[in-house]
Parts: sequence; structure tokens; C-alpha cells
Amino acid sequence: EIFEVKWDAVAAEKNGYDHFMLKEIYEQPKAIRDTLAGRINGGVNLDEVLIDRQLLKEARNVTIVACGTAYHSGLVGKYTIENLARIPVEVDIASEFRYRNPLVDEKTLMVVVSQSGETADTLAALREAKSKGAKVFAITNVVGSSIAREADSVLYTLAGPEIAVASTKAYTTQLAAMNFLALALAEARGTLEKEKIQEIAEAMQALPAQIEKVLEQAEQVKAVSEAIKEWENLFFIGRSVDYAVAMEGSLKLKEISYIHAEAYAAGELKHGTLALITEGIPVISLATQEQVLDKTISNIQEVRARGAYIIAVAQEGNEEIGNYAEVVLTVPRTHPVLTPLLAVVPLQLLAYYTACVRGCDVDKPRNLAKSVTVE
Amino acid sequence: EIFEVKWDAVAAEKNGYDHFMLKEIYEQPKAIRDTLAGRINGGVNLDEVLIDRQLLKEARNVTIVACGTAYHSGLVGKYTIENLARIPVEVDIASEFRYRNPLVDEKTLMVVVSQSGETADTLAALREAKSKGAKVFAITNVVGSSIAREADSVLYTLAGPEIAVASTKAYTTQLAAMNFLALALAEARGTLEKEKIQEIAEAMQALPAQIEKVLEQAEQVKAVSEAIKEWENLFFIGRSVDYAVAMEGSLKLKEISYIHAEAYAAGELKHGTLALITEGIPVISLATQEQVLDKTISNIQEVRARGAYIIAVAQEGNEEIGNYAEVVLTVPRTHPVLTPLLAVVPLQLLAYYTACVRGCDVDKPRNLAKSVTVE
Repeated sequence: EIFEVKWDAVAAEKNGYDHFMLKEIYEQPKAIRDTLAGRINGGVNLDEVLIDRQLLKEARNVTIVACGTAYHSGLVGKYTIENLARIPVEVDIASEFRYRNPLVDEKTLMVVVSQSGETADTLAALREAKSKGAKVFAITNVVGSSIAREADSVLYTLAGPEIAVASTKAYTTQLAAMNFLALALAEARGTLEKEKIQEIAEAMQALPAQIEKVLEQAEQVKAVSEAIKEWENLFFIGRSVDYAVAMEGSLKLKEISYIHAEAYAAGELKHGTLALITEGIPVISLATQEQVLDKTISNIQEVRARGAYIIAVAQEGNEEIGNYAEVVLTVPRTHPVLTPLLAVVPLQLLAYYTACVRGCDVDKPRNLAKSVTVE
Repeated sequence: EIFEVKWDAVAAEKNGYDHFMLKEIYEQPKAIRDTLAGRINGGVNLDEVLIDRQLLKEARNVTIVACGTAYHSGLVGKYTIENLARIPVEVDIASEFRYRNPLVDEKTLMVVVSQSGETADTLAALREAKSKGAKVFAITNVVGSSIAREADSVLYTLAGPEIAVASTKAYTTQLAAMNFLALALAEARGTLEKEKIQEIAEAMQALPAQIEKVLEQAEQVKAVSEAIKEWENLFFIGRSVDYAVAMEGSLKLKEISYIHAEAYAAGELKHGTLALITEGIPVISLATQEQVLDKTISNIQEVRARGAYIIAVAQEGNEEIGNYAEVVLTVPRTHPVLTPLLAVVPLQLLAYYTACVRGCDVDKPRNLAKSVTVE
């Protein structure tokens, strides 16, 4: 008797999830746990990374270069590194960096970020920086990739294979890697006390469980996707590191739901884009940063006064925000530099459910490839 | 007999133009001529600017802070200053800068830009930088304004009063001021030979007449506004300094025509936003930079293959671009760092005519104020 295999190999790989993207969103706690394992433990363990300790200590500046979602991890990295290690960080789009005769040299710590390790523009940027004498530190998910091979030192994100075109677990593990780098720099340069480093390291180790808690709000996010599904335009706003998260949230929604979402620094809207705020338009407002909370709320009020429908992402225990938002999605409290790892999760779910309800091909959006190996 | 005055005082001030914005667009040749007069003449005349020559020579970095259109002049400034004077430049949004404990000190040349000189966030950024020991160089259009009074040195743009909310002549004179600063830094730091400085200074003096030539294409731009008027979404793309111009072009269109226009670094589109390119969508493609022209054309081909309607802005004599665009608007040839002063002009006209044909209140767009004196 011939035994016929009924199940579909691809469906099996999805592990019961409807799409790879959803599966990968839910794999984030494990991916981050794996990425941190053995590396963050009271302090920062550099053993396996082979990064030049002298350079960590003496670098004049850091330049982070990447594309797309990886570029957005660099924007968070700038905020975190400048904040903790007090060294100037420039973040550049790889396709721009390589053609502008950039000011990097042997005193620059060059950081390149690419999930696949094969992104053509990022690889070219790496070579450009090396030719100018810079030491290159790579953050990538693929062992043996071109970028991993050509970099001077590598930190691998242990996200496992990412199949969906829209990057999720690669992004959050890149953020974990950025935090790792920020702590390594802070330690080498003596800008943070030992206890402070330990405190952040402990907060990092709590992130996987905290992400699980955020994922429990999936049904609530699904309801938001019903509320926004008819809109062809909407905005994300945020201040400080929330602005970087807003950029990533808007890119997710763009690439898989085809809604023209644009992110703005919340304080910048009134310099022009406020003209696009009309009755009912959804404005997804990141409000996780305590030190700018009152300013963010005043920006939320500006758009709300023009009729915007406010979906806020805020920290647990922030009671005030409920007065200014139609919906509040919450994330657990953590150290301020770590909130992006939590705040992006509801935005990933929002992009996912909105794409589903709009009937889009979630895992393979039109016009896009997973790894961009052309320029 | 009583003599009744029939004419309207405001209409009289418009000098025969339908709107202040159009009048101000046409005033740009004079505004730039006035701004350059006596300041650029073979070299750079610093007499009136009172800028600390020692700092020009020894500054470790430049930080430019502004909002809205003035911020966009800063993005061009970064490109020009890094290119000519080889000093690292950071550009920041004023509402972000002041809350991020920025890395500026007495070795930083801080540049603030504000047409009115009263922009609340920019003024607060100036104070923050001064409190950290930085010397502040202001570019403003209003003598005696708060920013002019509190800065260590001031370069006044001589644009005359700007009444329309959407900034045009203030922007191009800010660009002229940025060029002035770039040359002053290059001269002080010895990064450009005397003949090279003279060459750029001469090219600057030719700009007013070249802008007049661009303005002669008004009818052609009007036809483009007819072609795009029904679209609620569109994109601007460009590489290198063209990307900065694309940002300003998209802001103009947003604020007065209410079309959701977004600017992208041309090489970055394929990392997500390409999913939004569908049949017929207008993509305004800046292609003035020779050194990245082939790369820009390959990005134009990417969006064109998905059905985009290409409106290109290119230099005179660029025959190739016609093969890839439905419409080509041309600007006269100049030094590569000066093209933004020409390339933005058709984009200003495009925003103007599109707003008119869509029946918008050009000079007073909804929700916006001319000078943002709240945070």
C-alpha cells in the first residue's frame, strides 16, 4: 500500500500559524533569549565577538550603516549608544553612504547591520569603510554570509531563519545586539557605573517574558486593524527613541498592507504635515518615553483637535494617556532605552492583521524581495 | 465729491500675483542676489558676520538644528559643508535635539536656522547648546528677532518679508547662507584651493539669473500639476543632495495641496516602500547629480517597471533621462553643491499650481501657522 503524504511541507514549517510573519512575530521571545544567552550576564561578555577593545575605548565616533528595517535598528542604536556611552553616532542609509565620500577613518567604529548578510549596498558600504581604514563590526543573522566574512568582528543575531519578507524577529534581535554594543562601549569608556550596567543587563534578560505579555494583546490589536483598514493614509508619531520605532511601525504597515503610512517626529508635524490631518485619520502615537511624555501628549492633542483617531502605545500604569486616545496598547515597564523591543511588537501585529483583513499576500508583498542583493 | 478707493490693500501688496506664495517664488532671484551682495566676491567676506575665525578653523564638528523647511536647508547644508570643508555635520530636528542630552560642547559650531527667528523649539535648542558651551551661528530672516539676539553671530538672509505660510524664498536664501558657511569653513580649514573657492563663488553669483531661467518653465510645470492633481499619494525620490531637495519638494506639496507626498532616498525604496508603487502613481525623480546619475536612473527604472508616472528634474543637456521619464523639467548647469537652489524651484511651482487646481487656500493652508512659536 502506498502512503500518501497529505500535509503540505510549507504549512508544516509554519508550525500551525497562518503565515510565516505571524510565526516569526511569536518567535521573538525565543530569538531574543538565544541572542542574549551567554553574552549578557551582569556585564557584557565579548569573548566570542572579537571586537577590538582598544577601539571600543578610543573610537572617536560610531557610524552605523544599513538599509530598510536594519537601518531603523540603527536609529534606535544611535539613541542608545549616545545615551549610554556618550560617543557621537551617525546613522546612514547604505545606498547614500557609499556615494558621499564619507568622513570615516581608523578612529571610526563602523557598524553594518543586515539580516541576510548579503544586502548589496550594505556590503559595498562595508568595503568603502574598510578602504578608509575603519574597523567594521557587523550585526547579521547569517553565519558565513559575505558581510560576516568581510567584517573585522561579528555579532550574530540568533533569530533563526526569517522567511517572511517583512522583517520582525531579525529587527528585535538587531535591537538586542545594539544594546549589547552600547553596553560594551559604555563599559570600555567608563561612562556607566557597574551597577547601572548590571541593571540594564537584567532588564534585557526580562525582555523575552515581557514580549510574551505584549503578544497577549493580539485580539485588541486585531480590533484596531478593523478600525484602520479602510484608510489609505495614516501617520505614526513619536518623540525621541519612539520616533525611530514609529519609523519601523510605518514601514511594516506600508510593505504588507499597502497603506501609505508615514512616521513623523511628533514635534515636527506642525511645521507642515499637520495640514494632512483630517477627520477620522488614524494617528498611531508612541508614548513610552516618560521624559517627553507631556510634550508627546501635547502633540497628540494637536492632531486630536483636528479629528485624528488616536491609537496610543504606552507603558503600563500610564493612566493619563487614556484621556487622549481612542485605544491604548500597553507595554510592560522597562529601562527607557529598551522600550523599542516592546513597543514595536503591537505595531508588527497591527501591520500583520491589517494586511490580512485587506486581503494582502502577507509573506510575499508585491514588488519586494527578502534579501536585496541588487543595488 | 468723495473719492472711493476701489483697490484692495492686500491685493496691491501682491504686486499683481494671485497669491503671496507665487510672488515670493518669483522674488527668489532678487532675494538671493541681495543675500549674496558684498558677501561673496572671489572669496568669502566675514566682516559683518562676526563669526569666530578660530572656531571656524578648529571646530571638531558642526551641528545644525531647525524645524520644517529650515531643517531641510540644514540637510543640504550637511552635504555641502562635509563635501567642501570635510568636517562632520549632524542635522537635527529642533524638537528632538533639545530633549536628547545632545553631545555638543565648546568645540561644536552650532548652527540654528529659522526664517522668523522666533521658532520656539529652535530658540530652546539654541539655549540648550549655549548652556553646554557651544558657540551659536544663526541664519535668520528677521533682524532683532529672539534668535538673532541670542546667537553669538548671525547671517541674515535678505529675503524680505515672507507672507505665505509655505516657505520658498526663505528656503533658497537659507541655502545660499549654507553655501556661504561651507565656503567660510573650507577657507579657514584649508580644504579647498583658492581657485576652487573662487569658482564656486562665481557659480553662486550666476544663480539668480539661472533661477529666472527655471521660472520660464512655469507653463510646463502647470501641465504637470494637471497630471498629478487627482492623486492623493505620490513619491519624491533622489540620491545624495537630491534626496534633501526631494524632502523639501514633498513638504511643499503636502502643506498646500494636501496630497500625501513622501520623499525617499532613491536607493532605499526597494527595502519596503516599492510595495506602494502601482499603475500611474506619480514619482517625482530628482536627477541632478552626475556622480550618481546611473544609479538614480536604475531606481527610476524600478518604479517605472511597476507603472509609475515619472516626472524628472534634471540638468540641461542630460539627454538620457528623457528615455525614462514622461516629463523632464530642466535646470541650468552649475556646481553640484549648488543644484538644490535651482532644482527646488520647479517643485515650489508644482506645489503652487497643484494647490490652485485643487482649490486649496494656497497662502493659508489649513491647520498651519507661519511662525511656530509654541512647542
